[in-house]
Amino acid sequence: MTLSHLNPDLPIGVFDSGIGGLTVVKEIKRLLPNEGIVYFGDTGRVPYGNKSKSTIIDYSLQITKFLESQGVKLIVIACNTATAHALDAVKKATHLPVIGVVDPGAKAAVHYTKSKRIGVIGTVGTVNSKAYEKAIHKLNSDMLVFSQAAPLFVPLVEEGWFTHPATSLIIREYLKPLENERIDTLVLGCTHYPLLKSAIDREVFSSITLVDSGEEVAKDVKSVLEKHKLLRVSKRTEPFQYFVSDLNFRFKELGKMFMDEPFDKVTLVEWQ
Amino acid sequence: MTLSHLNPDLPIGVFDSGIGGLTVVKEIKRLLPNEGIVYFGDTGRVPYGNKSKSTIIDYSLQITKFLESQGVKLIVIACNTATAHALDAVKKATHLPVIGVVDPGAKAAVHYTKSKRIGVIGTVGTVNSKAYEKAIHKLNSDMLVFSQAAPLFVPLVEEGWFTHPATSLIIREYLKPLENERIDTLVLGCTHYPLLKSAIDREVFSSITLVDSGEEVAKDVKSVLEKHKLLRVSKRTEPFQYFVSDLNFRFKELGKMFMDEPFDKVTLVEWQ
Repeated sequence: MTLSHLNPDLPIGVFDSGIGGLTVVKEIKRLLPNEGIVYFGDTGRVPYGNKSKSTIIDYSLQITKFLESQGVKLIVIACNTATAHALDAVKKATHLPVIGVVDPGAKAAVHYTKSKRIGVIGTVGTVNSKAYEKAIHKLNSDMLVFSQAAPLFVPLVEEGWFTHPATSLIIREYLKPLENERIDTLVLGCTHYPLLKSAIDREVFSSITLVDSGEEVAKDVKSVLEKHKLLRVSKRTEPFQYFVSDLNFRFKELGKMFMDEPFDKVTLVEWQ
Repeated sequence: MTLSHLNPDLPIGVFDSGIGGLTVVKEIKRLLPNEGIVYFGDTGRVPYGNKSKSTIIDYSLQITKFLESQGVKLIVIACNTATAHALDAVKKATHLPVIGVVDPGAKAAVHYTKSKRIGVIGTVGTVNSKAYEKAIHKLNSDMLVFSQAAPLFVPLVEEGWFTHPATSLIIREYLKPLENERIDTLVLGCTHYPLLKSAIDREVFSSITLVDSGEEVAKDVKSVLEKHKLLRVSKRTEPFQYFVSDLNFRFKELGKMFMDEPFDKVTLVEWQ
């Protein structure tokens, strides 16, 4: 596959079911400050976590088409559930390079673990999909993977309760079973969770390494762009572009919590 | 309007964005054990709380048509957000009687309060809609209404953490501002919240009366059916019918928590 017709100045397309993917955008911005971003948050249909595979594939293909129409050079699926269910379908549907959030996180976990006992936390959808387990075992079948759904973490993040006593209790409740399994590495398998990283760090054994998928995705984006000679060298001057499928969601308000790029332009996309 | 062509043996149609409306079904069943129920849970598009008014009207009209096609005699909108945004539109779109969850709760609150200081808790969508404030002020403009969004309550209920220490802390966090306003009546303005009724009762001042909209809706259903001579006298033999828009949602599992009617039949409705 050759992507030589693409202009390196084109932006990167990033999508998520809502706002969580902004933690990935933040890491891409930190590592690759020249790159432009077109972000799509499916705020009208959030959350994906409790929807079926076929529904999530439909949504992901629709968003992929939209990002292609915006002239992006690479697509990042910055949503664990969409990656788990729709990565293969999106790869088939586009000629652009596609990066999901699961493989980079799995690779980092396999790299960091010494005990070969890895914990994964995520939404019910991500945990039930066993996406991390499969990705980790593909890299090394000796690894033991212990998963835990943590449905309260997303609303806690969206409430901004990063230091609330209830947050500590909830973190302990979800992570105690994983500590009991003597994990030494914990994958934050949901793009909202990096905002709870400090809180989780305070509550779990200090011997446990936290893997933030956003950081790992940014490294993958860099290497894929390098490989295809698509890294942007010119300095970015245009703002990031944000699209959502419902304006009612507190995207701007929450967005400030997720990253520091100004939210001048949030545009509604109407599907019908 | 005459409804004399309708058979009193027809079931009642109830809809919600997901599973919460089952607390209303439970109260209808308790008060009117003869009545059949056709329930629609929009599990493929849950939650409604962060969606815009026009989106919620579209969804509600689509579900109303579906319930009409199932031959129901009355429609209950067992979702506070859908009631807040779409009650008028649904009433216009159907010749059947329609009951929402807001007015019965507002009426009960006005009836119970002595201090004329009423608290309302609900989702962000319900609180922002000011539906309870408007409904209460329509009944009595002297009332002072204090509202508080409680986004963590729905996931706490769906986790089944009714007696968890974190639940107590979260309840106190949300309700302290309302206690400080010296409310004597608190409307549980979300159909999930009746499952937290005991927990809330333990945490708030004993002088505060809790209003469970489900109970109040059931009373309204009874009086509307009586008025139209549509109360069923024959004993119900058929099971309740449950329809959902996505099967992946833990409807059966959560449903057990919400009520005791067996969940033999949960059917997927595919819109397209």
